[in-house]
Amino acid sequence: MSATLIDGKPISAAVKAKVAAEAARLARDHGLVPGLAVVLVGEDPASTVYVRNKGKATIEAGLRSFEHKLPEHTSEAELLALIARLNADPTVHGILVQLPVPAHIDSQAVIQAISPDKDVDGLHPMNSGRLASGLAALVPCTPLGCLHMLKTVRPQLAGLEAVVVGRSNLVGKPVAQLLLAENCTVTIAHSRTRDLPAVCRRADILVAAVGRPEMLRGDWVKPGAIVIDVGINRVPAGEGKTRLIGDVAFAEAAEIASAITPVPGGVGLMTVACLLANTLKAASMQAGLPAPQI
Amino acid sequence: MSATLIDGKPISAAVKAKVAAEAARLARDHGLVPGLAVVLVGEDPASTVYVRNKGKATIEAGLRSFEHKLPEHTSEAELLALIARLNADPTVHGILVQLPVPAHIDSQAVIQAISPDKDVDGLHPMNSGRLASGLAALVPCTPLGCLHMLKTVRPQLAGLEAVVVGRSNLVGKPVAQLLLAENCTVTIAHSRTRDLPAVCRRADILVAAVGRPEMLRGDWVKPGAIVIDVGINRVPAGEGKTRLIGDVAFAEAAEIASAITPVPGGVGLMTVACLLANTLKAASMQAGLPAPQI
Repeated sequence: MSATLIDGKPISAAVKAKVAAEAARLARDHGLVPGLAVVLVGEDPASTVYVRNKGKATIEAGLRSFEHKLPEHTSEAELLALIARLNADPTVHGILVQLPVPAHIDSQAVIQAISPDKDVDGLHPMNSGRLASGLAALVPCTPLGCLHMLKTVRPQLAGLEAVVVGRSNLVGKPVAQLLLAENCTVTIAHSRTRDLPAVCRRADILVAAVGRPEMLRGDWVKPGAIVIDVGINRVPAGEGKTRLIGDVAFAEAAEIASAITPVPGGVGLMTVACLLANTLKAASMQAGLPAPQI
Repeated sequence: MSATLIDGKPISAAVKAKVAAEAARLARDHGLVPGLAVVLVGEDPASTVYVRNKGKATIEAGLRSFEHKLPEHTSEAELLALIARLNADPTVHGILVQLPVPAHIDSQAVIQAISPDKDVDGLHPMNSGRLASGLAALVPCTPLGCLHMLKTVRPQLAGLEAVVVGRSNLVGKPVAQLLLAENCTVTIAHSRTRDLPAVCRRADILVAAVGRPEMLRGDWVKPGAIVIDVGINRVPAGEGKTRLIGDVAFAEAAEIASAITPVPGGVGLMTVACLLANTLKAASMQAGLPAPQI
């Protein structure tokens, strides 16, 4: 491959180290220890692993971690009551309800029950709206991670053509808003886009967030483009095993792009680091302190 | 000119007529008369005219109009207290504070004081976020007007390339969200875009919202494109007179486009009509009734 590898390992480690340093400063100067509450309903194995990793990383960064594990049959009312208690708890600065929640619970009701100021997942419409309006917002973690990785290879993004493939509330739309705020010319493409390869070939920055294994081929990449692959797709790898691949055909694209994120080891590693950064930011804002630059 | 003229006069009249018919139905079936409160601080001549026109159109459509004219020296606290009363008033379903407010008042504080459910200007971050998240939202009036006009010449927009020039919270960004929800491939261009003419030439739908007289030239328009001109610029017309022109060089563009809105007589006429539609929608939603399709 000829492209620079944008390696999530050192970049996420650097973000975590900065969070830890800022947290230590907050504790020393203001007696403030940011607290993150993670709520898990049910026993989905993947979610259980995610929640465990988040808790571990939170403590390693010197933040306070609160885990709330509720049984699968928890009612929506019980979950909302817990969220109300966490909203009112001054030691809790960030609240994350691990999604998906069981089908009998309305996830939109859960998202909107979290105080926007503690919404470290950035999914509350108030935070989407703040982001869209250029106000101080808590921004979803994966899009923040994408921007971080991008800036390691290209600190100034103004004037670049960015194409975001995918328009989810979790990734595509907030990534587009972040790139617009960086003064990119931003195109949002999706399943209804005509001639998607041609649209992708316009991109100086190509962000793939579609959830379809290796959908974006090498010849969809403009020579010299920076490729950010948000996809994490589990596919069969023979002998009953599986492996993770992205939304971009990595080997092909790495011959054309100037820089590219791998899967695994790319954007996926940034999510927890950015969650910690969001918790720090939420705690600072709640205390009336300036948000630390991470 | 060879393009179809998208004439704001009959289109806005049709919207107003639909609002009036739906309002009559609401009154008959549910005893509900939607009420719009418009608040004007100070005596800016243009704002005074706008407010008068809004009040007149509101009554003509069979809605209830409340006008609150406050002196220039009104404090922010007094204005916020009025908004709080209007938020609590069950006969008021929509609240519009005419912008700009005097410099000693924080307009963002005013916008965010309005209940999102009564925010018929659609400027509250909660409504921007609802729009961005695909939830039921009150959407700013001018973007709604653009979409209406567009659909008179092209009811199905899915798969079309749309380019929105301008990224204001009032027009550019919400227009982009509406076009994305219609399944267009949407590009947001702006002052930092490189080679803006080339980006515009990609557009099947070109929306100009930059506030610069005749900035977009005829050769920026793709043959057959639909051009929506949101600009309303007052320029000298000789002998001490002025006239209104758009952001698009109309005569040039009308030779290339398949359809185009004029200035004046285009998008500008839609704003009040869409404000009435928003008031009707807000009243319906507050009463737990389905939002009428306008």
